[in-house]
Amino acid sequence: MPSIDFAVIGTHHAHVYDIVDGLIGAGARLAGFCGDEDAGRAAFAERYAGARREKDAASILGRKGVQAVVLCGLPSERAGVACRAMRAGKDVIVDKPPAITAGQLADVRRVQGETGRRFLVVFGELLSGAFDRALKLYREGRIGELVSVAGMAPHRLGEARPEWFYDPARNGGIMVDIGCHQIAQFLTITADPAAELVDASIACFGGRDGFFDSGDIILRSGRVRGYARVDWMTPDGLGEWGDVRTMITGTKGYLDVRKTVDVGRPESWDVLYVVDSRGIERMECEHAPLDFYSKLIADIRDRTDRSISHEISFRTMELAIQAQELAESRWPCVR
Amino acid sequence: MPSIDFAVIGTHHAHVYDIVDGLIGAGARLAGFCGDEDAGRAAFAERYAGARREKDAASILGRKGVQAVVLCGLPSERAGVACRAMRAGKDVIVDKPPAITAGQLADVRRVQGETGRRFLVVFGELLSGAFDRALKLYREGRIGELVSVAGMAPHRLGEARPEWFYDPARNGGIMVDIGCHQIAQFLTITADPAAELVDASIACFGGRDGFFDSGDIILRSGRVRGYARVDWMTPDGLGEWGDVRTMITGTKGYLDVRKTVDVGRPESWDVLYVVDSRGIERMECEHAPLDFYSKLIADIRDRTDRSISHEISFRTMELAIQAQELAESRWPCVR
Repeated sequence: MPSIDFAVIGTHHAHVYDIVDGLIGAGARLAGFCGDEDAGRAAFAERYAGARREKDAASILGRKGVQAVVLCGLPSERAGVACRAMRAGKDVIVDKPPAITAGQLADVRRVQGETGRRFLVVFGELLSGAFDRALKLYREGRIGELVSVAGMAPHRLGEARPEWFYDPARNGGIMVDIGCHQIAQFLTITADPAAELVDASIACFGGRDGFFDSGDIILRSGRVRGYARVDWMTPDGLGEWGDVRTMITGTKGYLDVRKTVDVGRPESWDVLYVVDSRGIERMECEHAPLDFYSKLIADIRDRTDRSISHEISFRTMELAIQAQELAESRWPCVR
Repeated sequence: MPSIDFAVIGTHHAHVYDIVDGLIGAGARLAGFCGDEDAGRAAFAERYAGARREKDAASILGRKGVQAVVLCGLPSERAGVACRAMRAGKDVIVDKPPAITAGQLADVRRVQGETGRRFLVVFGELLSGAFDRALKLYREGRIGELVSVAGMAPHRLGEARPEWFYDPARNGGIMVDIGCHQIAQFLTITADPAAELVDASIACFGGRDGFFDSGDIILRSGRVRGYARVDWMTPDGLGEWGDVRTMITGTKGYLDVRKTVDVGRPESWDVLYVVDSRGIERMECEHAPLDFYSKLIADIRDRTDRSISHEISFRTMELAIQAQELAESRWPCVR
């Protein structure tokens, strides 16, 4: 099976390692990279010691052998680079958020449509064995008809974030940055890109002006409701970056997805509880194989979008940007 | 310490046993009861074999020695009986929901104000050792400033519910009936009777016309958000009536309250997890003493409302009725 050659443009976020490792693990070849000196380039070069360093995006986009580019630069610049890349005939694999304004999103949507290039977004929080398993069980009918999805995704803020991270003009804000995982999850479970935003809120507790560290969102797909809350408040005593959970309720049972730590049994990771007519079943999913990156490579080879559909990715970001704007517009009323 | 004599008016809901047992356990004396023949009266008489059976509410309200009445009749009739009881000089202990319409609520509020009688509502889902402990820890500052409260309260529908249960005109609907616990919880944690309703939805999945078996609600108190979802979908395989959880997130940690079963460790009941700067702490609270009924008796003796304040009870029902109305008005758009 032929694989692909890809190059990295932008190393601002450490997600780049997950994506590059995922692609290499699935058989793709890292053909080169470029990045800013003060934004992860040296660490990247050290980690992938054989990788060819390019001067800039243009050098990479000019290389015929590079089929796809991985974008992990500043969130505010990803959409622009993605458009240039697609126009240069490259497929795009982009860390979330791939766009942070409605204008950027409209641009990538239009250029993707015009060029037919792949625009594949990596929503890392969907890459969980427990979530994969839950999705499969739901689709097989294990919990009956879908009633509700409720996600909780606290994240650790830590001390070492770069300045751009705190700037909504560069990172997009909490709903765009981490709310988007939750939206992508709801659209994936419901398989409904027509799902709508009902309400969203953000708030600032941490005292850093202009940096919103908490938020929530309500979505709906017909009579199915989706709720999610996100924050940057993981306490230091939790050994992990966040205690990320999703409760998927159906008419005949529920799927309790604990994507990271299971606080009641902290020795385990990525666990699914299924509660239905038969009882409570616990499934450890830490070592379940994930085929996301294989599917992603296949999408590039076969011109499909089975790893994550264009429609769901675009709609996710549309809703995330809407949610961010709605919540920001309301904030002065509650501060 | 002097105790009180109380009598029961209405035995429609089995909550009457919890309340009567709670009061007797705290030293009060059951002085009599009345109830409908087809609504729990025989079972009540059998369980409390020495209790004096009265013909009707009027007979009980005419008895000088009875200080308080426990109301557990049809939800739609509780407010009316409560007003008569308060006007007759009795204090009222009432199962939730104490009123199911805005008009009924206005009546009990007015009569309580005019008579100064106690109007003490039992929101049974607040009576959890883990919740009690969580509330205490939050108030002591263990998790810093409050950020969010998210409650999930599925309930088992079962087969044996009486006809009135399915009739919103008699039971008030899902938000009034079981959403009210969640609202009372949010107002109790925030200690903010000025908290507002942001959004609410209900839906019907079970196919029984007019019976809404799922719903959710968003509340806010300043920048603190409250979410809750309720349903009648507990699957048969769960050994308990519902897997009831509350996640209380603060700026310095979170309190994960599992009021009933802990699905990861189903041998335990009523468990609290505290996650903060120090680590994960698990507290088994099943046998923690609850002083709700002692406080309730003290409230009657001392003319206080420390068990559950009038203000929080009234505001809870106001929000529950608002939520029910808002959600019902929207339902045709999504069905």
